Amino acid sequence: MKNGHAKARSRAQSKPRPQSRRSAARAKWVYLLEQGRAGMRDLLGGKGANLAEMTAVGLPVPPGFILTTRACNSFLEADGHWPKGMWEQTIRALGKIERRTRRKFGNPACPLLVSCRSGAKFSMPGMMDTILNIGLNDAVAAGMLSLTHDARFVYDAYRRLIQMFGTVVLGVSDEPFEKVLAAYRSRRKVVNDAELGADDLLAITAEFKQIVQQFSSQGFPEDPAQQLRLAIEAVFRSWNGKRAFDYRRATGIPHNLGTAVNIVAMVFGNLGNDSGTGVVTTRNVSTGEREMEGDYLTNAQGEDVVAGKRITKPIASLRDENPAVYAQLQKIGYQLERHFRDVQDMEFTIENRKLWMLQTRNAKRTAQAAVRIAVEMAQEKLISRREAVLRVTPEHVDFFLHPQFDPAERIAARERGDRIATGLNVSPGAASGMAVFDADVAEQWALRENKEVIMVRPETKADDVHGMLASRGVLTSHGGRTSHAALVARQFGKPAVVGASAIEVDPEGRCFKVGERVFREGEIISIDGTTGDVFAGRLTTILPDFKDPHLLQLLAWADGFRRLGVWANADYPADAIRARGYGAEGIGLCRTEHMFFESERLPHVQNAILAKTDADRAAALARLLPFQREDFVGLFKAMDGLPVIIRLIDPPLHEFLPNHDELLREVTELETRECLLGGTGASPAPSRALEWKHRLLEAVESMMEHNPMLGLRGVRLAIHLPAFVQMQIRAIFEAACSCAVEGVKVFPKIMIPLVADANELQLERDLLEAVARTIMDERGIRVDYQFGTMIELPRAAITAGQIAQRAEFFSFGTNDLTQTVFGVSRDDAETGFLREYLEKNILTENPFATIDQRGVGAMMELAIELGRRSHPKLEIGICGEHGGDPKSIAFCHRIGLDYVSCSAFRVPIARLAAAHAALDRTRIPPTGRLRLPWPSHRGNRHLPHLRRQGRAI
Amino acid sequence: MKNGHAKARSRAQSKPRPQSRRSAARAKWVYLLEQGRAGMRDLLGGKGANLAEMTAVGLPVPPGFILTTRACNSFLEADGHWPKGMWEQTIRALGKIERRTRRKFGNPACPLLVSCRSGAKFSMPGMMDTILNIGLNDAVAAGMLSLTHDARFVYDAYRRLIQMFGTVVLGVSDEPFEKVLAAYRSRRKVVNDAELGADDLLAITAEFKQIVQQFSSQGFPEDPAQQLRLAIEAVFRSWNGKRAFDYRRATGIPHNLGTAVNIVAMVFGNLGNDSGTGVVTTRNVSTGEREMEGDYLTNAQGEDVVAGKRITKPIASLRDENPAVYAQLQKIGYQLERHFRDVQDMEFTIENRKLWMLQTRNAKRTAQAAVRIAVEMAQEKLISRREAVLRVTPEHVDFFLHPQFDPAERIAARERGDRIATGLNVSPGAASGMAVFDADVAEQWALRENKEVIMVRPETKADDVHGMLASRGVLTSHGGRTSHAALVARQFGKPAVVGASAIEVDPEGRCFKVGERVFREGEIISIDGTTGDVFAGRLTTILPDFKDPHLLQLLAWADGFRRLGVWANADYPADAIRARGYGAEGIGLCRTEHMFFESERLPHVQNAILAKTDADRAAALARLLPFQREDFVGLFKAMDGLPVIIRLIDPPLHEFLPNHDELLREVTELETRECLLGGTGASPAPSRALEWKHRLLEAVESMMEHNPMLGLRGVRLAIHLPAFVQMQIRAIFEAACSCAVEGVKVFPKIMIPLVADANELQLERDLLEAVARTIMDERGIRVDYQFGTMIELPRAAITAGQIAQRAEFFSFGTNDLTQTVFGVSRDDAETGFLREYLEKNILTENPFATIDQRGVGAMMELAIELGRRSHPKLEIGICGEHGGDPKSIAFCHRIGLDYVSCSAFRVPIARLAAAHAALDRTRIPPTGRLRLPWPSHRGNRHLPHLRRQGRAI
Repeated sequence: MKNGHAKARSRAQSKPRPQSRRSAARAKWVYLLEQGRAGMRDLLGGKGANLAEMTAVGLPVPPGFILTTRACNSFLEADGHWPKGMWEQTIRALGKIERRTRRKFGNPACPLLVSCRSGAKFSMPGMMDTILNIGLNDAVAAGMLSLTHDARFVYDAYRRLIQMFGTVVLGVSDEPFEKVLAAYRSRRKVVNDAELGADDLLAITAEFKQIVQQFSSQGFPEDPAQQLRLAIEAVFRSWNGKRAFDYRRATGIPHNLGTAVNIVAMVFGNLGNDSGTGVVTTRNVSTGEREMEGDYLTNAQGEDVVAGKRITKPIASLRDENPAVYAQLQKIGYQLERHFRDVQDMEFTIENRKLWMLQTRNAKRTAQAAVRIAVEMAQEKLISRREAVLRVTPEHVDFFLHPQFDPAERIAARERGDRIATGLNVSPGAASGMAVFDADVAEQWALRENKEVIMVRPETKADDVHGMLASRGVLTSHGGRTSHAALVARQFGKPAVVGASAIEVDPEGRCFKVGERVFREGEIISIDGTTGDVFAGRLTTILPDFKDPHLLQLLAWADGFRRLGVWANADYPADAIRARGYGAEGIGLCRTEHMFFESERLPHVQNAILAKTDADRAAALARLLPFQREDFVGLFKAMDGLPVIIRLIDPPLHEFLPNHDELLREVTELETRECLLGGTGASPAPSRALEWKHRLLEAVESMMEHNPMLGLRGVRLAIHLPAFVQMQIRAIFEAACSCAVEGVKVFPKIMIPLVADANELQLERDLLEAVARTIMDERGIRVDYQFGTMIELPRAAITAGQIAQRAEFFSFGTNDLTQTVFGVSRDDAETGFLREYLEKNILTENPFATIDQRGVGAMMELAIELGRRSHPKLEIGICGEHGGDPKSIAFCHRIGLDYVSCSAFRVPIARLAAAHAALDRTRIPPTGRLRLPWPSHRGNRHLPHLRRQGRAI
Repeated sequence: MKNGHAKARSRAQSKPRPQSRRSAARAKWVYLLEQGRAGMRDLLGGKGANLAEMTAVGLPVPPGFILTTRACNSFLEADGHWPKGMWEQTIRALGKIERRTRRKFGNPACPLLVSCRSGAKFSMPGMMDTILNIGLNDAVAAGMLSLTHDARFVYDAYRRLIQMFGTVVLGVSDEPFEKVLAAYRSRRKVVNDAELGADDLLAITAEFKQIVQQFSSQGFPEDPAQQLRLAIEAVFRSWNGKRAFDYRRATGIPHNLGTAVNIVAMVFGNLGNDSGTGVVTTRNVSTGEREMEGDYLTNAQGEDVVAGKRITKPIASLRDENPAVYAQLQKIGYQLERHFRDVQDMEFTIENRKLWMLQTRNAKRTAQAAVRIAVEMAQEKLISRREAVLRVTPEHVDFFLHPQFDPAERIAARERGDRIATGLNVSPGAASGMAVFDADVAEQWALRENKEVIMVRPETKADDVHGMLASRGVLTSHGGRTSHAALVARQFGKPAVVGASAIEVDPEGRCFKVGERVFREGEIISIDGTTGDVFAGRLTTILPDFKDPHLLQLLAWADGFRRLGVWANADYPADAIRARGYGAEGIGLCRTEHMFFESERLPHVQNAILAKTDADRAAALARLLPFQREDFVGLFKAMDGLPVIIRLIDPPLHEFLPNHDELLREVTELETRECLLGGTGASPAPSRALEWKHRLLEAVESMMEHNPMLGLRGVRLAIHLPAFVQMQIRAIFEAACSCAVEGVKVFPKIMIPLVADANELQLERDLLEAVARTIMDERGIRVDYQFGTMIELPRAAITAGQIAQRAEFFSFGTNDLTQTVFGVSRDDAETGFLREYLEKNILTENPFATIDQRGVGAMMELAIELGRRSHPKLEIGICGEHGGDPKSIAFCHRIGLDYVSCSAFRVPIARLAAAHAALDRTRIPPTGRLRLPWPSHRGNRHLPHLRRQGRAI
């Protein structure tokens, strides 16, 4: 892969289809602005197409022309030779500008200057080059001076040209130019170049010319035509510059598009106080309010506003200074917004009280603004509701669900070097608080002393949950996306960063270290679960509002468009209530065993596990039963009228017992101690403490597995030790019957995990349905219920036809399915080799964040196909964490799932993403991939594709 | 599944298609022996068809007739009512026998007696019932007495009828009958019933009648026709008896075949010294020699020979006693052998010097005999070579490869209660020796003191290998089929039993316990790795000879028939030499890391792992390089001219480091000790020993994974830490170049393990091919080589199309593929829930022993299809342990693999199994299963099948 970059770049160059000489000669390489329209972005680039559009609708745009993207590709393909006819067309177009402006390129008497800017189909801000003031040379400068009598203006323009030309076209470094400017600034004791005088600029111009002479082989060309030709070539070449290439790779813009080049007559905002330049948006892009907003500068050139070297004025002050121009600008804004059907971001220049539009494009905006603008534009009938929904991204919605750090403070903190670590962004939201290192302190400080705390641990376990609940956020140095910390944090919506490996946590020492820096208990830190950043000190957090009326409106529209149901994963009644508030239409996964970890339940669970007789076990489970029943009553009431999928116990039992290594350490310590003390005369018999620990250790060791992920869990456990699931079924049906008696509409759906073979499901189902019927007979009431299974093993997917005959629903457990399809242990890999794989581009996406369509997705499609063939009414959903990931949701829509289920906090995002999937098939990345060759009920459409792939070795 | 047995039985009954009343009336339920032929086994059963055949070719068979299997099924289906016409046909047939024998059924003046025997299509020895001497009653007995004047004979026959009829037809228990016989024997002070006098038998007959009267509602029927009718019904019913049902389930005989009933005129071998009865085989079924062999008894009835109550004479003595009959029997033997084209097992009776044939069937035989008979019959042109190959089973071949216990001693030991445990039969062969509990003692005793030892451990690890090599066999109480002990034992052909959980091993105490029984070091035990049995004491072992010329001939013929290549898994040159001796055509898997465990290498491996700098690592690996190179030189030389697939390092690195729990225990012990001693005045600084252990522990902990099976191993490790595989590639190519220079024909094939994505393979291949080229350039020589990959993850199977574009060969690693497809950790499951699954019939076969065709097999087919489409010349094999399993080999043949690779000791078996797969498609169990719906290059033949399945819910 060493040469991958270079190879890919050369591939990018060779992609466009060669034009034959004859067609090249006849080809149209150059368009006048009045010859183009907005729809020609492919050919004219975004900037050029919009300039042409503005010209076409009669807005004041300086005359100009565009060399097309095709021209760029032909030029690059011909290794930097101009295709036949291109230069001639350029000169002809320039002639048209000369006639329209009544100026002459290179003629000192009435000189025409032009700008040369790149403009690709997709905006690549700052990635490619611009050269202003082309057409200036010594003679022209002298001519302009005699025309304007403004030496400052003329030599400022000239020195800018020389510097830009030198660096962009001739490859001279910026450094010598900046050195000269710095020298003059210090000599004049000024801060800005703008404060230098005309004499200085004249001298600087001369020095700049020397620099160019010295550092390049060519020197600065006095011939304006030569300047233009070289500038165009430089912009073309910049398309394949490393900067642009990397940007495209990062943003997914194809390498074979090419850039257009815009040549436009210069207008000058720096011709005195009746001139100026500015940048405005047609609405407020922070809040979405409908009012023009922006900045401008009197007597300045465009760059000065953007560069931030001078303090700009708000656009509103233009109203007072120049009401006519302001009104014109506002009118143009309205016009463009209606025309382009989106908020516009416009550049303008005022040259001697005349307004010129230099650029317009759709404006970037904040999440809040995006939602409000989309909704209001739909209400104004400017766009359809469908478009409104498509214009808001899942990330925009996510903004409303979690606290955020103030963006400015975040930047400042980074610049101060206060970002002390980065980990996995496992639970979004921002939080600041005092670092604490154990759960009891966290609870004490937070609940009794009303402090804000962040819980910091190497990793967390069941004992830590009460501390996590009391904290504002959680930070761990170990663990991955499915670590205990991550799961619990997501479930309760606590911001969390895990696996921040730069942090060394010392819970005993009540501190953590980052390199040499030590953070003690009580010190303030801040974590951002959305980005994975960890900061020293406090950052201001902003609390957005999910009840924002524009957001609610938008999501309501989205619901009208989507086909996929959106359900939630919820283990507790409180989760279910929250999920329903966010719009969940059912519970897709209730992990019953999560309830086992609570402190008043765990002892009963442990007793049931360690029981030596069936009677002891039954007694322990009987004590657990009321707790489970109450949980289910709460869930059913919260979801009155909606389905609730309850998954029976899944994890291996040793997860409910103490940690093996700790026990081993304790036993060895006690043994050694008693042995040594025994040797000096004390009692030789092992103490009772030691005996008890021994018993525990033995139990834990008897349950230890080499690979617990692939071990005695799920349905295997249910078959091996039926008492647990029988208790659970009893709890579910007792709860359902009680609720039904009270008039609550209950729809329990029992889900069997980790099924690999239809026989497992059959066996369990027979056993459990018998229990269910018994209870309903006892209570004298019937409730509707279903039995179904997780599809989370490859074998379940490949034998889905048989399994479907015994199930009423499937739910894809894509976490485990990804682990088994890839043969990857997520806990180990996500902070380990999987990171390395992503860095080395072996995988392009983390398969635990977004469904691996080629592998895991193919298994899912197989299971759906086989399952539905054998059981056409089978309901199929997903309850893995992918159910909350927009890209994965689009995939789930495409392969025909009935619903996605995700954590409550992802429900609004999933509603939008599901609508997007239904509305806009072009959002689905083109696969171009090998598809599985099974025939589809959608008519074998994959098959020819596969055959093509097969041959194209 | 509680009612599964009963349900299945009722299903079995209801299967045969009902005959309409009219067709029943016209149906032929009864065949005279002369109306049948051998080809009518389905209808007449095996025994009946063969009797008919003997009748047809003119051999002396007593007259008789057969009620068909269809009659049986119709009878059972009609709930025990006789279909119309069946009884009438029976009576008519009986009339034919009467005419032919010139006797009359029930006529005391010239009575006809008949036998009534079951006879299904497939032999079910002892499973169903027989009643002899039907037709006897008080009057007939009196008539016979006046005809024969032999009261002993008459009442012996009569009492036998009453007992058989009572127990079989009327359901009286055997106990009261046996009590009466015992009382008479003790009164007469004799051992055998045969020694009782005529008076006794007369009295016994009367008492038997009373018993029947007392214990059944009906009493013994005096009417011979009634006897016959009830006897026939009882035999029909015995088809669905529990005994027969269980036997069929165990042996896979379908439940809907039904049994025929043979009614044959009685002939009597107990009419004096000119009469007799016997059982002979046409060749020696122990050795295969071509000589008639068997036993007979003068003046006896058939049962007496089989029952073993009297001491039989070898058949050779019949030659002296009755040369004419002997010659006739021998001639008939030749005739039948030629006729049936197989060794016959014949029952005969001599009644007053006249020979009657009562049964003939293909004889059971030992492995040795099976091979010799098959080869010699082919040489005699009696059968084709193809048939010879098909008649020998893989189990027969296996016999020649491993020591066996003497079967008689084995039975005796079991009866003595000396079978103390049963474990997993992981490495075949039998061994006796002294129990030893550590590797050093094993080596000391075996190599220095020349003792035979069996190594007994809870489980084994790398340190134990030298002890295992010195031992005759290995026994562990823990671990499964892929445990270290199992792998090492198989590799070196050591008999091994692992996971014998009844055994509690106490290595420190130098003993093991089984319940209350304690076995100390030095006590003799015996293990049978073929069956998994563990015995106390010594059993004689028999050492078979692989060089048996008949076996070599047979395997040579097999090679001519098979399409599959047979390669071997071999890690060391010695393995390779052995494998080639057994006929391997290549090395399909060399596990390079196995070599790392040797004691002179392990320190370098550990240093390379623990190295803090690249330089340290390089130095350690440089010391390892010569060892690896020498191994490869040995392998290449052993396989001169044949391909050698070398798999690069696969296991996670922590496998090469000390055990974590032991380290943790040691560290804690040292810490506690030093802390306590420090407290009493000693040095407070940790000792150097503790520091070193700490460092080791830290390293081990940093490498610990929750699920190592799914962790940092295989290609992941190669990408993460390229130095190891680079060293291995260097070793391979240096070795290959040296060999090539010496004129050895080398074909190294480099195999990358655990690939999940084509990019992994591409990256590795680019890296390693560069190293390979460098070395070949250094040496100035080229060798042919290939790069390929294991397919052992579901994702590799499902993306095989892409992977195939970067690989020259695939090798299925079905061990890991089974683990990931099922989501099962073999180490944990095989002694755990998987056993439970097999017991509960959730799975019918251990998927780690025989490929799970429905799941894992389907993934393999998918990978083959996709792989070959994208790379038509792709070579595909299997190197998982399934490669040595005959059923799996048949599957591999069917799905189109190029070769199977198995351990050296399985190579001859695989050669035969591969021939069987090619010759005999009927050996492949009919699948009747859901097939994956991808289109096949074989013309979509699975598709309609799938559709049918889909509808048949």
